[in-house]
Amino acid sequence: MKKIDGLRACALVLLFAAAAAAQAQGQRRGLPVQPLANGPFEYMTGEPMKIRVQVLARGLEKPWSLAFLPDGSMLITERPGRVRHFRDGRLMPDPIPGVPAVRFSLLGGLSDIKLHPDFAHNHYVYLTYDKPMGDNGEVLTVARAVFDGRALKDLKEIFTVEGATSMSRMLFAPDGKLHVSVYGESHEIAQDPMELSGKTLRLNDDGTVPTDNPFVGRKGYRPEIYTLGHRSPEGMVWHDGKVWEVEMGPNGGDEVNILEPGGNYGWPYVSMGRSYAGPYQSDKFKREGMIDPVVFWVPSISTTGMAFYTGNKLAAWKGNLFVGGVRYGEIPGTGSLSRVVFNENMEEIRREALLTDLRQRIRDVRQGPDELLYVLTDETDGAMLRIEPAE
Amino acid sequence: MKKIDGLRACALVLLFAAAAAAQAQGQRRGLPVQPLANGPFEYMTGEPMKIRVQVLARGLEKPWSLAFLPDGSMLITERPGRVRHFRDGRLMPDPIPGVPAVRFSLLGGLSDIKLHPDFAHNHYVYLTYDKPMGDNGEVLTVARAVFDGRALKDLKEIFTVEGATSMSRMLFAPDGKLHVSVYGESHEIAQDPMELSGKTLRLNDDGTVPTDNPFVGRKGYRPEIYTLGHRSPEGMVWHDGKVWEVEMGPNGGDEVNILEPGGNYGWPYVSMGRSYAGPYQSDKFKREGMIDPVVFWVPSISTTGMAFYTGNKLAAWKGNLFVGGVRYGEIPGTGSLSRVVFNENMEEIRREALLTDLRQRIRDVRQGPDELLYVLTDETDGAMLRIEPAE
Repeated sequence: MKKIDGLRACALVLLFAAAAAAQAQGQRRGLPVQPLANGPFEYMTGEPMKIRVQVLARGLEKPWSLAFLPDGSMLITERPGRVRHFRDGRLMPDPIPGVPAVRFSLLGGLSDIKLHPDFAHNHYVYLTYDKPMGDNGEVLTVARAVFDGRALKDLKEIFTVEGATSMSRMLFAPDGKLHVSVYGESHEIAQDPMELSGKTLRLNDDGTVPTDNPFVGRKGYRPEIYTLGHRSPEGMVWHDGKVWEVEMGPNGGDEVNILEPGGNYGWPYVSMGRSYAGPYQSDKFKREGMIDPVVFWVPSISTTGMAFYTGNKLAAWKGNLFVGGVRYGEIPGTGSLSRVVFNENMEEIRREALLTDLRQRIRDVRQGPDELLYVLTDETDGAMLRIEPAE
Repeated sequence: MKKIDGLRACALVLLFAAAAAAQAQGQRRGLPVQPLANGPFEYMTGEPMKIRVQVLARGLEKPWSLAFLPDGSMLITERPGRVRHFRDGRLMPDPIPGVPAVRFSLLGGLSDIKLHPDFAHNHYVYLTYDKPMGDNGEVLTVARAVFDGRALKDLKEIFTVEGATSMSRMLFAPDGKLHVSVYGESHEIAQDPMELSGKTLRLNDDGTVPTDNPFVGRKGYRPEIYTLGHRSPEGMVWHDGKVWEVEMGPNGGDEVNILEPGGNYGWPYVSMGRSYAGPYQSDKFKREGMIDPVVFWVPSISTTGMAFYTGNKLAAWKGNLFVGGVRYGEIPGTGSLSRVVFNENMEEIRREALLTDLRQRIRDVRQGPDELLYVLTDETDGAMLRIEPAE
């Protein structure tokens, strides 16, 4: 087959970078945005189990994450830089005061929100966001604030990543350490152990570095690093004694990884996907010293947040992994919620795609204290959905 | 993570083999079969282009392949062992006489039908099928018959594969040679060069072996072999000067390959999929000397037939590859038609899944002489669909 010349290759790269940007903006290659109907929606799903999907809240602008408070209410982040309060079954009209200024962009703004494991006593809430720096700059920031039930107060930046922006997920592990994911889409940087982009980090709850991190004391390595070689890690959860992480691949190759301390997950040297211009991302699907994914999607569903279901109300789904996607069926913009079933060795045995017909970008999924699943749609007129058993 | 013991592993294998068998039988893990509505169905698709899908014929039992005759009519195979005639816009009620007896089973029966390149003069039609042998045996058979416009006559078996059964695709290449695909799901046999299972073959139009086949004269190799290491090759087409082939993976890992004479495509040593019990099929996604797929699907769509669209009526799809699937969205039984877009180097740049909401298993796809796409649904009450531009 013919080789393409340099100029044409460059034109192709620009063309597909533009296409990728258009997709990220929610354009659907000409497909009209389908407004979310009122619901509830009922589906027979694969185990078989019949489910009902309720629309709990609407009018959320690009919601990204949610946190359940001990009183049963919820805090929901909107990427433009608001925290909303969902209480007594409805979305409070006014945002929570005390949220810092953020730079809202194609992939940036306010992203994750997490409660401190000891929130009941210290009322600490953690946020990740792009803090504006000067006219066009921004810096990825992890901040901690006190939530008094009405407002965020005493906000303190506890960690920043210079040169990094974009959406960042947090996770408190059972040992109380704070895991933070950092985008590494700009390729080689994800393998540079002196850079924090394209890594997951492990911090103390005040942003300092734990002395038992895998690279502490190792020359040429930033001590915050927990794992290397990530592209766009937007989901992290604790399950089965490990940190599970999910990241988007490029043109194919979204993947779920189980994180081993100090592990290298291969981006950009190993990927199951292709670059946007067409060639495979790497000449190998696997390399010595780089850890294989546990689950991957080809073509991409453009993975976002994730959750393991551990409850009993949706009994047939116990132990299943749920992963949001902002496209599905290979059509940009048509989101899905993937359900992945594992055997007892945490090896995948089958999958199912849910909510595809709603044609909503799915941003996050979370098990609530009521053992139901909560889902955020990544739309300008976004919504919160709840999945319940239907019978 | 824990290792499973032998007995438990064996139980798991049996469990998932049963599940796979149930899937192959069209059971949907409890999901009810959704009858095909009357249509026509209209869709906005990704380029964007609006299409209309017409139901041209119903009541086909497990249709597998179709062939366009010079007079504009069509011959359609039904897997239980019938050839049907679609003429003047409707399905003739009586099957074509002269079809040999076949053994209809979970994966077997009558499969492909192809016209000789010089059909206009010699009226040769080729069939692949499982010929019954004794009480329970069968043998994969390639036969040639003369179609006189009403019946198949003078049927002659021109090639058989002992020990092989299941669905087999044929292709006449522009050099007049007949390519035949043979299932190799039973693993190691696909790598055995003295066996024909898990291979594609290249034959003369009378079933003899061409002298320029890649392994002719090579000790330890069957001279019929064109390529090795295939699992379940159900689609083959000629495009861009090459044979393109598509095969199902196991639990993930369906793939499209461009066939090089003598090439090894890896099954069962390399696969992007997992075994039905959960572990990855192989310890590597790639091996030296084994050729990578051009397109692959994880999770599986359970690929079937394929076609390149080369016409002008569906202009936005020119050069796209279409691949049928008997499941989609990871739900067994919910079929799809995948559209794959390539760059000028035949590297994939994006995909789209079509017809998913119909929930029909898609068995085959073909471009008609009218430059429209024809689709067969793999259902007990199967149908032939036609895809047209909608405006």
